[in-house]
Amino acid sequence: MQLYGYFRSSAAYRVRIALNLKGLSYEYVPVHLLKDGGQQLSDTYRALNPAALVPTLVDDGAALGQSLAIIEYLDETRPEVPLLPADALGRARVRGLAQAVACDTHPLNNLRVLKYLKHTLQVSDDAKNEWYRHWVDVGLGALEAMLAQSDDTGRFCHGDTPTVADLCLVPQVYNARRFGCDMSAFPTIERIDAACGELQAFVDAQPQNQPDAE
Amino acid sequence: MQLYGYFRSSAAYRVRIALNLKGLSYEYVPVHLLKDGGQQLSDTYRALNPAALVPTLVDDGAALGQSLAIIEYLDETRPEVPLLPADALGRARVRGLAQAVACDTHPLNNLRVLKYLKHTLQVSDDAKNEWYRHWVDVGLGALEAMLAQSDDTGRFCHGDTPTVADLCLVPQVYNARRFGCDMSAFPTIERIDAACGELQAFVDAQPQNQPDAE
Repeated sequence: MQLYGYFRSSAAYRVRIALNLKGLSYEYVPVHLLKDGGQQLSDTYRALNPAALVPTLVDDGAALGQSLAIIEYLDETRPEVPLLPADALGRARVRGLAQAVACDTHPLNNLRVLKYLKHTLQVSDDAKNEWYRHWVDVGLGALEAMLAQSDDTGRFCHGDTPTVADLCLVPQVYNARRFGCDMSAFPTIERIDAACGELQAFVDAQPQNQPDAE
Repeated sequence: MQLYGYFRSSAAYRVRIALNLKGLSYEYVPVHLLKDGGQQLSDTYRALNPAALVPTLVDDGAALGQSLAIIEYLDETRPEVPLLPADALGRARVRGLAQAVACDTHPLNNLRVLKYLKHTLQVSDDAKNEWYRHWVDVGLGALEAMLAQSDDTGRFCHGDTPTVADLCLVPQVYNARRFGCDMSAFPTIERIDAACGELQAFVDAQPQNQPDAE
């Protein structure tokens, strides 16, 4: 397998954790989102991933995009170390938690959106950073409430083994800290993030531990 | 089952199509996103859905949020009229198409984001509408490329029966038209949208056909 990613991409980070937890070896192919006007926009990369986004997983000749779709694919084809619960209600909860990050939080703060704010809307750096923190507050606030109010929350987001929800939580927390967001309102999220940080699979997936880290 | 939704919410619209395609009856509970300062923000609604977003599906006492998680849950518990292909690669493709809308397009243009642009960043109505059209162009451009370049695309996004990808495409197209986006660059999307529009399940789910339509 080959994973096309960028060390700081949250979505690639999620997939790296999944691959590590499942003990799957893969070749990492860096795609620099800033160099050359964005290498993800090249014709070569678009041939692989028409959406021009990272990550892309290539498995046996098939190129797959979208981190959550990739992780579900890995879970179906390599079911050892499952990343979703066995019951339908549990899976719905875990997918809902993952999507609270992947659909409601991360998309508002990714690189292309920040660029649009700065270059097209010409907002100040302060206003851009305030935007970032606002959507982290809203998104992580929702996630915190979902986690804190449920008996299903354990050492990790759902029970005592990592699921796809944790794979989304950890990169989002990493980004929030990088942008100086105040995390004190999210104690459950911080506790789970710390528990994940004790697992080598999560550590090995961290941006600074990737070959293209700067 | 009860579906808490808002007639114009894309995410609720997706779930309505799923319920209709599967022939499941449900009670529709309107949550007005603009009245009373946003009924989704009330304590009553937050008790059901801590993220304070629509839709929420209540099934047998369990309250589920996030449209894609709800649809997967319905597909697992009511597998007649499946909304995902039978093979892992096909499922990955369909989920990827759905997420191209649900993660990369819709989140940038939902109501709370447009409100932030207007009230906090104080951008003009023109700039706000330009923002809307920009992310529709980017998002539907990616979706069009993914669909046009694949032999798996049929009458619908994946083959000749509707999948969760179509359930995301149709509400996104509805919104794009409402905001006056130019659709001429997306012929495959328009063709699939028209095919969906011939099915009563899709028609019955349209915003203007809901009890809370204005």
